[in-house]
Amino acid sequence: DEFDGPCIKTDIPGPKSKELLRELNALSATHEVQFFCNYEESKGNYLVDVDGNIFLDIYMQISSLPLGYNHPALLKMLNDPANMSTLVNRPALGNLPPADFPQRVQNSLMAVAPKGLTNVKTMACGSCSNENAFKAIFMWYMTKQRGGAPPSPEELESCMYNKSPGAPDLTLMSFTGAFHGRTIGCLATTHSKAIHKVDIPSLDWPMAPFPQLKYPLEEHEAENRAEERRCLDQVHALFREYNSAGRPVCGVVVEPIQAEGGDNHASPAFFRELRAITREYGAAFLVDEVQTGVGVTGSWWAHDLWQLDDPPDIVTFAKKMLGGGYFHTEEFRANSGYRIFNTWLGEPSKVAMCEAVVKTVQEENLLENVRQAGSVLLDGLKDLQMKYPTQLENARGLGTFLAIDCMGGETHRNKIVADLKMKGIQSGGCGERSIRCRPALIFQPHHAEMVVNAMDEVLAENA
Amino acid sequence: DEFDGPCIKTDIPGPKSKELLRELNALSATHEVQFFCNYEESKGNYLVDVDGNIFLDIYMQISSLPLGYNHPALLKMLNDPANMSTLVNRPALGNLPPADFPQRVQNSLMAVAPKGLTNVKTMACGSCSNENAFKAIFMWYMTKQRGGAPPSPEELESCMYNKSPGAPDLTLMSFTGAFHGRTIGCLATTHSKAIHKVDIPSLDWPMAPFPQLKYPLEEHEAENRAEERRCLDQVHALFREYNSAGRPVCGVVVEPIQAEGGDNHASPAFFRELRAITREYGAAFLVDEVQTGVGVTGSWWAHDLWQLDDPPDIVTFAKKMLGGGYFHTEEFRANSGYRIFNTWLGEPSKVAMCEAVVKTVQEENLLENVRQAGSVLLDGLKDLQMKYPTQLENARGLGTFLAIDCMGGETHRNKIVADLKMKGIQSGGCGERSIRCRPALIFQPHHAEMVVNAMDEVLAENA
Ligand code: FES
Repeated sequence: DEFDGPCIKTDIPGPKSKELLRELNALSATHEVQFFCNYEESKGNYLVDVDGNIFLDIYMQISSLPLGYNHPALLKMLNDPANMSTLVNRPALGNLPPADFPQRVQNSLMAVAPKGLTNVKTMACGSCSNENAFKAIFMWYMTKQRGGAPPSPEELESCMYNKSPGAPDLTLMSFTGAFHGRTIGCLATTHSKAIHKVDIPSLDWPMAPFPQLKYPLEEHEAENRAEERRCLDQVHALFREYNSAGRPVCGVVVEPIQAEGGDNHASPAFFRELRAITREYGAAFLVDEVQTGVGVTGSWWAHDLWQLDDPPDIVTFAKKMLGGGYFHTEEFRANSGYRIFNTWLGEPSKVAMCEAVVKTVQEENLLENVRQAGSVLLDGLKDLQMKYPTQLENARGLGTFLAIDCMGGETHRNKIVADLKMKGIQSGGCGERSIRCRPALIFQPHHAEMVVNAMDEVLAENA
Repeated sequence: DEFDGPCIKTDIPGPKSKELLRELNALSATHEVQFFCNYEESKGNYLVDVDGNIFLDIYMQISSLPLGYNHPALLKMLNDPANMSTLVNRPALGNLPPADFPQRVQNSLMAVAPKGLTNVKTMACGSCSNENAFKAIFMWYMTKQRGGAPPSPEELESCMYNKSPGAPDLTLMSFTGAFHGRTIGCLATTHSKAIHKVDIPSLDWPMAPFPQLKYPLEEHEAENRAEERRCLDQVHALFREYNSAGRPVCGVVVEPIQAEGGDNHASPAFFRELRAITREYGAAFLVDEVQTGVGVTGSWWAHDLWQLDDPPDIVTFAKKMLGGGYFHTEEFRANSGYRIFNTWLGEPSKVAMCEAVVKTVQEENLLENVRQAGSVLLDGLKDLQMKYPTQLENARGLGTFLAIDCMGGETHRNKIVADLKMKGIQSGGCGERSIRCRPALIFQPHHAEMVVNAMDEVLAENA
């Protein structure tokens, strides 16, 4: 059973956290450490720290824990001795998969595969999922260019020196405000914060504007439609510009809701047209669901809500799926060995844990729970922005994937997040001035009320 | 207890593996699958497949299992209920580390830290370890260029568009035949096989020749010295060329023994001079020990054998360390938050498993075991190349990190690897025509004799 509510006894970080921070800092840079945790004592929606403080956690390890802390279904799975060998003997999964792997993939990943995507490749994190999806797109594109023929001897030789034609000057389009990871390939498509990118060499790839919509969406339909039109026109323009410069745009990567970039939304119509444009230019459409996937919007995948007739070519996942990977259509299968490969290719134990998550979400009807708890939380945020019209605006989101903007900018946002922590609410920021809610799928309406009440107190003290 | 020896009952892959392959292939490309395994039944040096075949495994999941299958020390660690919450509650390690994390890092990674490297960053695989090491090098270089000042407003703005000065045109030198991973940044420094690289856009970074030495090394000292001189002269030339073209070489990345590229060795003197050259040009020296680390050469790190006065700036690891990361000097610490970061930053359970490995290697004196078993195996390979002078040459290596070349090229090598499999020896290829031995640290002299005898039979049948 969970705790009754949060309970803060010390400063945050408390004295024990501070001591551990000194210890760790002697070995490793620790700029990002908030406090140290007691994960054994943490339960459900509540995170316990080493000083005995108890937080209601609506951030859930950067949105990566689907069922909160110490969920019985996961404990049971891991306590099963039959699963022990999976953990101890991590295989080179591409070469020597375990006997139960096909069935496990069927019961976990394929049980929630996006409509139209019949294939899956497992990976270990969001970055390698996106990196390999990019590679799959470039291989698909060049194979098409060659009419299905294998690479020429000249291509095979020149690629060894990173030179064309073997290492061709291909590009991938992304959007302002996007976040797709931090390895060098992913980073070329990430544009959320300068500090992630500065000083790192990159690739000259096209970046289209992501719509900057006005909220609430239903009150600004005409303006928002015009803004989306402007962005889609730019997508067209960039395709023409790069293609005619001999630097073909082979694909477009997009998040259904820009998460790290500030919870920026666009309409289903925007994404449907984006899909049509990629089709028109012979480019791939890659949907990055690393943060939006696994039920947080009230559907398993956020892009389910777009009602596409023509599905995405590739959908990447990680975080709440507990391992990474990408779903894809038959067309995007590697056409020979060792083109999409690495030593581990993810981990069978993560697939087994994902299976437990998929079953739990179904058995406990958690998507319905997300819709209910999310609606209580969003209504609460909307009430707060009415009550504090000089502090908050733009409450928005789907399911429990919610955010609100702080009108005093970054400093104001950081103060509210810090003040919430002192009231026992563990939240997080995104973009320049947004607070994001990323609770687990077991977050319930009564938790939402606690969050709203705590926020009300914080805002009143700040008023 | 282990099995008495290998035992092959079916074709490889056997009928059950073939059936599972059909199942998996309906969901995912499977070009690289060899057979399916029964990891519960596998023990020590022996891998059991789903058809009941038993292999003596000298490849150990692409060199990634340090203690073989189901080692009691790892089973014990994972069966400890206190470790269960580590597995179930994977944290965002950079933000909210578990209470025992500083101590765990101390007992595992820092207990085997290369001399002079006082800091460590945990990562999840070899690729993100190298990608982040590259980023740390670029940040260090640009911070030096600015005399320690933070990035300028112009740098912060331009980097968002992947443009200079914020995304500067910096380069990193690597070697012909190198393998440093397959994400797009790593792939720019990987030059082992065209199929890994072709069709993927890359970065125009300098590639120096890696020495192609004659074996046995002790019989070709003068020629080998001249070959190493040639390569080091090229390193100088590339530094001058790229630096004067305004595309500064910020670092050099090198494997102590090129593994995937064909087990190519160079002398300690070569690496000492390479270190001195990087120092001379103000570039970082990055040693990639992803495959050579963790005792396989008879010392914990292969570069220990170089006896450097001036240690490497960064050493990356993964595979047998069970998680990834990099050691570095104080100078290479990120100078502000979120520059070297991702959601998971590795995993505490992998650090805990690494701790069990470090302890076991010490308690069971496994480095000494590696030296003994390796010497029996290398002597055996040398005898075989004497006995079959038209089939084998260039037996070479350190510890159990051994290889031998097949004189009939790739086809010949692939046949020997396949024939060995039918005799119950699971080995692997590398480079164009080499067989590589990558057993676990628990591989003993009597296992080495079994390998040599099986190889003798295969070669006799091929003669
Ligand atoms: S890049 Fe994904 S785990 Fe290393």
